[in-house]
Amino acid sequence: MSGNTFGKLFTVTTFGESHGPALGAIVDGCPPGLELSEADLQRDLDRRRPGSSRHTTQRREPDQVKILSGVFEGRTTGTPIGLMIENTDQRSKDYSKIAEQFRPAHADYTYHHKYGIRDYRGGGRSSARETAMRVAAGAIAKAWLSQQGIRVRGYMSQLGPIEIDFKSWDGVDDNPFFCPDPDKLPELEAYMDQLRRDQDSVGARITVVAEGVLVGLGEPVFDRLDAELAHGLMSINAVKGVEIGDGFGVVAQRGSEHRDEMTPQGFLSNHAGGVLGGISSGQPIVAHLALKPTSSITRPGRSIDVHGEPAEVVTKGRHDPCVGIRATPIAEAMMALTLMDHLLRHRAQNADVQVETPRLDQI
Amino acid sequence: MSGNTFGKLFTVTTFGESHGPALGAIVDGCPPGLELSEADLQRDLDRRRPGSSRHTTQRREPDQVKILSGVFEGRTTGTPIGLMIENTDQRSKDYSKIAEQFRPAHADYTYHHKYGIRDYRGGGRSSARETAMRVAAGAIAKAWLSQQGIRVRGYMSQLGPIEIDFKSWDGVDDNPFFCPDPDKLPELEAYMDQLRRDQDSVGARITVVAEGVLVGLGEPVFDRLDAELAHGLMSINAVKGVEIGDGFGVVAQRGSEHRDEMTPQGFLSNHAGGVLGGISSGQPIVAHLALKPTSSITRPGRSIDVHGEPAEVVTKGRHDPCVGIRATPIAEAMMALTLMDHLLRHRAQNADVQVETPRLDQI
Amino acid sequence: MSGNTFGKLFTVTTFGESHGPALGAIVDGCPPGLELSEADLQRDLDRRRPGSSRHTTQRREPDQVKILSGVFEGRTTGTPIGLMIENTDQRSKDYSKIAEQFRPAHADYTYHHKYGIRDYRGGGRSSARETAMRVAAGAIAKAWLSQQGIRVRGYMSQLGPIEIDFKSWDGVDDNPFFCPDPDKLPELEAYMDQLRRDQDSVGARITVVAEGVLVGLGEPVFDRLDAELAHGLMSINAVKGVEIGDGFGVVAQRGSEHRDEMTPQGFLSNHAGGVLGGISSGQPIVAHLALKPTSSITRPGRSIDVHGEPAEVVTKGRHDPCVGIRATPIAEAMMALTLMDHLLRHRAQNADVQVETPRLDQI
Amino acid sequence: MSGNTFGKLFTVTTFGESHGPALGAIVDGCPPGLELSEADLQRDLDRRRPGSSRHTTQRREPDQVKILSGVFEGRTTGTPIGLMIENTDQRSKDYSKIAEQFRPAHADYTYHHKYGIRDYRGGGRSSARETAMRVAAGAIAKAWLSQQGIRVRGYMSQLGPIEIDFKSWDGVDDNPFFCPDPDKLPELEAYMDQLRRDQDSVGARITVVAEGVLVGLGEPVFDRLDAELAHGLMSINAVKGVEIGDGFGVVAQRGSEHRDEMTPQGFLSNHAGGVLGGISSGQPIVAHLALKPTSSITRPGRSIDVHGEPAEVVTKGRHDPCVGIRATPIAEAMMALTLMDHLLRHRAQNADVQVETPRLDQI
Repeated sequence: MSGNTFGKLFTVTTFGESHGPALGAIVDGCPPGLELSEADLQRDLDRRRPGSSRHTTQRREPDQVKILSGVFEGRTTGTPIGLMIENTDQRSKDYSKIAEQFRPAHADYTYHHKYGIRDYRGGGRSSARETAMRVAAGAIAKAWLSQQGIRVRGYMSQLGPIEIDFKSWDGVDDNPFFCPDPDKLPELEAYMDQLRRDQDSVGARITVVAEGVLVGLGEPVFDRLDAELAHGLMSINAVKGVEIGDGFGVVAQRGSEHRDEMTPQGFLSNHAGGVLGGISSGQPIVAHLALKPTSSITRPGRSIDVHGEPAEVVTKGRHDPCVGIRATPIAEAMMALTLMDHLLRHRAQNADVQVETPRLDQI
Repeated sequence: MSGNTFGKLFTVTTFGESHGPALGAIVDGCPPGLELSEADLQRDLDRRRPGSSRHTTQRREPDQVKILSGVFEGRTTGTPIGLMIENTDQRSKDYSKIAEQFRPAHADYTYHHKYGIRDYRGGGRSSARETAMRVAAGAIAKAWLSQQGIRVRGYMSQLGPIEIDFKSWDGVDDNPFFCPDPDKLPELEAYMDQLRRDQDSVGARITVVAEGVLVGLGEPVFDRLDAELAHGLMSINAVKGVEIGDGFGVVAQRGSEHRDEMTPQGFLSNHAGGVLGGISSGQPIVAHLALKPTSSITRPGRSIDVHGEPAEVVTKGRHDPCVGIRATPIAEAMMALTLMDHLLRHRAQNADVQVETPRLDQI
Repeated sequence: MSGNTFGKLFTVTTFGESHGPALGAIVDGCPPGLELSEADLQRDLDRRRPGSSRHTTQRREPDQVKILSGVFEGRTTGTPIGLMIENTDQRSKDYSKIAEQFRPAHADYTYHHKYGIRDYRGGGRSSARETAMRVAAGAIAKAWLSQQGIRVRGYMSQLGPIEIDFKSWDGVDDNPFFCPDPDKLPELEAYMDQLRRDQDSVGARITVVAEGVLVGLGEPVFDRLDAELAHGLMSINAVKGVEIGDGFGVVAQRGSEHRDEMTPQGFLSNHAGGVLGGISSGQPIVAHLALKPTSSITRPGRSIDVHGEPAEVVTKGRHDPCVGIRATPIAEAMMALTLMDHLLRHRAQNADVQVETPRLDQI
Repeated sequence: MSGNTFGKLFTVTTFGESHGPALGAIVDGCPPGLELSEADLQRDLDRRRPGSSRHTTQRREPDQVKILSGVFEGRTTGTPIGLMIENTDQRSKDYSKIAEQFRPAHADYTYHHKYGIRDYRGGGRSSARETAMRVAAGAIAKAWLSQQGIRVRGYMSQLGPIEIDFKSWDGVDDNPFFCPDPDKLPELEAYMDQLRRDQDSVGARITVVAEGVLVGLGEPVFDRLDAELAHGLMSINAVKGVEIGDGFGVVAQRGSEHRDEMTPQGFLSNHAGGVLGGISSGQPIVAHLALKPTSSITRPGRSIDVHGEPAEVVTKGRHDPCVGIRATPIAEAMMALTLMDHLLRHRAQNADVQVETPRLDQI
């Protein structure tokens, strides 16, 4: 396997299996002088942490991150930042059967064929536990972006069949779903409780938004901002779809309806989701992602074993019935990493550009 | 601007503006010994070529590609393949007004701010004309993949409000829409004729499918096959959404419904779209993309000029009323490029892997 | 073959065989707004051009470069710059025997084994003709660096057994050897005339110097400025050694002798060649390279043919008796490309750094 | 700082400061199924370890490496391999004065200007301690190469003024200098003892050799095997020169003398050092590197402080009087990493190549 690095100038490289001794990451390319502490990273890790409500996996991991390099006397030095989280609550015996069978819809089958060997304990490298390091690295990006006036936030916009309208950022972090409409919470709780009784799992839709982004981020033609954002978001476990702005809604739109008209006071709409021609427009960048239902469920399913024989699979162990519930901080992290990388790339080549034209306010 | 290279081992780097002297590409990393001629590339270029029906731009470009290196006596040598298409039908006077104004929903505004200078003739680098080189490069990938038993094809699955069910691959290439259901053609024709009378544009949805893909392509965690596919497809002009398999449909699915069960005879369904854990499963790889309506329409729209003053924009020139109509070969190209790059990466590291487990047939 | 791209943010990708229709390059990542014309590139191409004295190959190539994109109204736009030189003086019949035999010390044998097929005409891709595009791309880098106050120049410091002391930059460009000591010219001319009579070739040593470089270029630990410079210089055909500053001279030096002491007035020496810890110190950057004698000589040599049978090889065709003679502009180009890439990378991450400490003058 | 990753397909990314809590690395792209244990890595780490003779720094570090991921039941899984070495013998008080002053010939001055902040304790990131992770990663590459029949070894070929002829590989690892001629040991010991009394340091020359390399490794034109080897070797602390084969000796050679003639029995010489046209020839690959004398010596030197004021610098702390003494395992590591990366790249694109021509034996 290669491919464990994200970013071009600001890069994150990760390692770690679900039940190995530790997860880790190297964050390279962070400018020097940024104030940074382990507490800054811990905040987002705690938002993603398992076991914090009855609706997520009951594995208990403190997810305590250590900064091993690159920070001196409270500030980044410009050298690579080494991060580590030790695994503490591995119960590998739960997973012994998985060594011989492939869970339907899981990476078991593809890893087995690609590598010929796999650490099957807890899904090994294919476990969503891997995303902890994305969140830790994303917190560094958020801290730096915040200095540039850029803020990245996300929320759940749909849980299974329940669509959730955005009401307010207030309270999003105060409920286990990252739900932006407090009135929806009882419905979400009830749905999840029933789902557990059904021994089933369900999908979700997450929305991430970046505000305060300057005009000009993104490198056409292949490294467009939206293309790299799609790359980052689609690389999250269980994601099967990514939209920018109106996304698939644009298919049925007319040009006269879709186009975001401009006036000296600002853009009049944001169907584009803040990206035009692959470059940020200064409007909020809006992306949506679709997460599939967890494949590890206790309802029996048909599969085969490593010898090609039929097998009935029942997944024991501790799993999230909806991976989407903990996905909001991960999606934020991938957007933050993408934006920071592009802001640095932009500074390299376009630092001297000056135009008379004013930058439009966001509407 | 950097970012004009796609791929890691099999790379495509492109240049060229809509109204400059030529478009070109360098395709690096093609294995030696592949039979290749300009005619192999021309076939797909002709499928994408403008002006071949009344429903696309009336610019007349023969799009005749030249191979300048890397092919000797009809076979690739393993050295970089230089490609060039000379522009012949530039009418730059049509675009003079664009130099001072920003078309709403177009890259004019973002390019202006990012670079401070832009070749405004025909959209310059942001023109969809750039995609011609993707198609030429993609044809090389298709030729090589074909030798490995892999076939990449696409079709239009929705035009504006008209959903198109897949009926058959037969005839897809025989109509200007790449429509897989001949019975829908009159409706599509009528819709487009009305759209032109309305001086408007519309979006579309394209589906691409790869068959014959072996198990094991894709490099977790960041360079997952679906993540890089999303990158490639989202980098196509006007694309605002990408789905793998059931895409956003997974949000409302239950795990027991979504999971593709396996039997010794094969997978029983393909909700996953051929990718599990970021690695190809051997099933057909299925992706969908949403293209927005063309921003260049003749209906007046509100905007600003380079001095920040209000302006009413009316786009003259020759434009596609639905960029989705010519997008099928481009989407195929990006999928082919992604697959070839991953197949080469897979060979590097997993060439020696052998497992007892049989590879499941596709259903 | 992959590996035809140099640089990370400012990248040059080249294609082209010695006797194919054309050579070309794509230069990506050049900041917008730089004044640039074909004449700016032609100047260095003319310095490298074959056939300009009796001491180089008699192939007559005008090496006329065309800019195909990325420049609009005399200034770079930030989009990729496409470059092309058409080959005009191919005499492929001269090389027919090479198809079946391997010249000793030439790439014939290794290309044959690696690719199984090769364009043997004039050495194909392994010909030094490939370096023309490096020189063209390097001229763009030089133009941009010049705006930043950085100047890159080179000279021949040894021809075969004849060591050449640096006397003055004046006149370096006025003799075919890039010799910095006019008094040495008669000796060099005589040596080369004898060499031709001997039907032999000889090596050379080239020195390149960059002045006006700011403190801070280079990214430890692997992308050190000197490491990437070594990469670039060693990638030039026929180069077998690279030194920074005192180079191999440091082996016998003591620390008290080697260290470049500093005073408020500046460094007192430059044994380091302008790089400390992989980062530029603000002193002139000095590098030396060793070029081997041309392998294509008319004296018979023992070799084998493609069937493994013994063969006596006599190289006909037109060749440089000392590739080092035309290497100075190529070495300058590789240093300029390296510096520009690093200056852009430096701006990305260190643009905000401010220190009280004054930057030392060069001595 | 970015640039902490080496390699393209087989990549090593490192972090860590001399006096921080730990050093670490992520090794990505190792094929699955390789037998690997911490003991395999420890062997080379012990060869590089400080304090193992009186001729190196007296810092006592066990350099005990931990494998944190990517190995399961004694074999690599194809997922990234996380490595960590905890620092144990930091005595940071020794270095307090360095915070305010710049050691001549050290990276202090350039780091200060580039980053504005630096972890001055023990040289921070610029310390040669960083190379421990290269050695650990290199040991993985060596283990894999060994399976392919490739062996990488090195020795000291010059210490200060004392040239050392290669006599035999026997005993190279049994003396602190990696000296291949046991008869030279008394002279080396005496020289080093006198050097310590002189409170000075000295340079060295190291030679590395790879045997058993197949024909075909290396990607022209920029990623030539020798160019990437030069990159890797020049990236080692204190290296100021790199040679392939005869290196700078080629300058005075004639073509008829330099060329390595071929017969069906093999090459008749190896002036090229095993690389022709940037591609391995099947002969032993031979590289030499020049290491400068340590800058940290106790003899007073003139410098400036962070306020630009004159300062007399006397370096306390524990330092190697000749960094070249411990450099052999590091040079081996960089050659092994380069070869493994290129062997994987070669397999990707040239796996199918078959030629009738036999591969020549090494002489």
